[in-house]
Amino acid sequence: MSLLQDTIGKIESLDKEMTAKARDRVNHLIKPPTSLGRLEDLAVQLAGITGNLFPVVDNKAIIVMAGDHGVYEEGVTSNPQEVTFAQTLNFVKGITGVCALGRVSGARIIPVDVGIKVDLPENSGVINRKVKYGTDNMAKGPAMTREEAIHSLEIGIEIANAEINKGANLLGTGEMGIGNTTPSTAVLSVLGKIDPLEITGRGAGLGTGGREHKANVIKRAIELNKPNANDGIDVLAKVGGLEIGGMAGVMLAAAASKIPVVIDGYISTAAALIAAAIEPKAKEYMITSHASAEIGGQKASELLGMKPMLYIDLCLGEGSGAALAFPIVEAACSMMKNMVTFAEAEMEI
Amino acid sequence: MSLLQDTIGKIESLDKEMTAKARDRVNHLIKPPTSLGRLEDLAVQLAGITGNLFPVVDNKAIIVMAGDHGVYEEGVTSNPQEVTFAQTLNFVKGITGVCALGRVSGARIIPVDVGIKVDLPENSGVINRKVKYGTDNMAKGPAMTREEAIHSLEIGIEIANAEINKGANLLGTGEMGIGNTTPSTAVLSVLGKIDPLEITGRGAGLGTGGREHKANVIKRAIELNKPNANDGIDVLAKVGGLEIGGMAGVMLAAAASKIPVVIDGYISTAAALIAAAIEPKAKEYMITSHASAEIGGQKASELLGMKPMLYIDLCLGEGSGAALAFPIVEAACSMMKNMVTFAEAEMEI
Repeated sequence: MSLLQDTIGKIESLDKEMTAKARDRVNHLIKPPTSLGRLEDLAVQLAGITGNLFPVVDNKAIIVMAGDHGVYEEGVTSNPQEVTFAQTLNFVKGITGVCALGRVSGARIIPVDVGIKVDLPENSGVINRKVKYGTDNMAKGPAMTREEAIHSLEIGIEIANAEINKGANLLGTGEMGIGNTTPSTAVLSVLGKIDPLEITGRGAGLGTGGREHKANVIKRAIELNKPNANDGIDVLAKVGGLEIGGMAGVMLAAAASKIPVVIDGYISTAAALIAAAIEPKAKEYMITSHASAEIGGQKASELLGMKPMLYIDLCLGEGSGAALAFPIVEAACSMMKNMVTFAEAEMEI
Repeated sequence: MSLLQDTIGKIESLDKEMTAKARDRVNHLIKPPTSLGRLEDLAVQLAGITGNLFPVVDNKAIIVMAGDHGVYEEGVTSNPQEVTFAQTLNFVKGITGVCALGRVSGARIIPVDVGIKVDLPENSGVINRKVKYGTDNMAKGPAMTREEAIHSLEIGIEIANAEINKGANLLGTGEMGIGNTTPSTAVLSVLGKIDPLEITGRGAGLGTGGREHKANVIKRAIELNKPNANDGIDVLAKVGGLEIGGMAGVMLAAAASKIPVVIDGYISTAAALIAAAIEPKAKEYMITSHASAEIGGQKASELLGMKPMLYIDLCLGEGSGAALAFPIVEAACSMMKNMVTFAEAEMEI
């Protein structure tokens, strides 16, 4: 059995007995019922994921998948493609957005080259798992073969498993890939059956004029490749990206190992939709973070069935929003561990 | 000169030169412009508050003001008034919501009795600054005298100054006071010129039927006491609360000492409106946290001119939302310190 099939086969629904037990405890903590809102739901979810009434998240890692996109040549972004390469090296140096934000909760940042267009220097510190030198141009054919798509998923699984073996009990997904709002929008369009024109945004710095062009490129890619919305791997292969596959793999591995995984913004949500299309139960292990400032962000969250927690207009990617959500996950754990019930406090109210 | 007058006199606008310098640095960090959204604005604000391009928040305290309310006897809440007393003792034990959430960022919790209806045990660990045994019933006359209102403000200033002298460089406000959504709604109604019926919510557990009654009590209190909307102290005295005054005092002291202060939810926002009515420049030192689930919460934020960052349906109070926002403030500082500019990274993009 392949690593992907094996991983999917291990994904079970949350521990129902433990979620019921956790909900009961949450309802009896010394506070008005439901007054800690979604923090209560998060604590219940974490208990169900981990099978522990008092979940612990003290070893955190954000896996940042980097890859390039053949569709870049259609002029879908105003940023130079070389940024993917340059910025990926900066993750190792600890000087990018997700590195700075991840420090607050002591998260390790794990950059992975899953498909950058050029070779990184040897000993760069970036994990080299290049499937190919960027995807092919989806406006002219499939972004990659089915085998390459599966390979990208398995790289995500492998990297996540390595972190989990090192003790990680909270994962986050991030990415770097100039042009990757384009495949993300294509994925969202196919899986959500939404016209690309409705959900195409300006990405990181596209002018207003370029938006319609970008939407038309996405429309063309979908019409040409005819991805099967009932087959997540087919959608990933035809109009997705290598880093999107890598992140989806991380999510599947987290679910298989019963580890919570925080999804970042727009691109991560596209990956989450792919993971959920491959195995719907994987969603139960996902935790939302921020509302992307991308136009399609809200639709993507709705389609995934998750309401973001943070509304601060982020659109950086890299896993920056996931990093900001880590302390909220910690807070939910602390609520379970450090608050007491009315009975424990010997309060009669 | 009184402590209050002295404090107000010290409040200056933010350091404009430093905010300009901070904005320039933020604009040149290695990310697409504005892609870290409101985290960028927060970093600029923190630089302007502290006069430091690289602000530091490594000593955090949440001051929790506790007080009772004479208007309780009108049946405006379904919770027993004794909870104020019992829960205030629990802050010392570290077992309440804000204690659990504050642990994530290492925040100290400082509970203060500014007007609980009964005496706390000696050596309870709660700071005793009781102005009186709860406010008077505002439905029958002013909640307190002008002198008592000023006293509550000065207690907040005194406690905040003590924490700042101990090294605190990030403050948060919290409260405990059964029935205190009632005076908060009255304050919001007067300062925002909004009909109480529009903004009265269910507080912590009031049934639907009780909501209209509560709104009518608020309406009656305002008609009877005629608070002067142009005089924050008059509004506080006539339809406010002792813990609301205490929190407003903390905010004024933070502004006077150029220390950022995170406001919590609905009750804290009412206190922020009082502080801003006393000295508008105090607002520049305030940082928003979560969107309260109280009906009037959105109006209160709008009136204060601040958009919350966290939307997770909290309505506990205690400073719990402020505690959750502390790591976001840390993240803004980390962005300034740990991200580099394109020039520093020697990137040509």
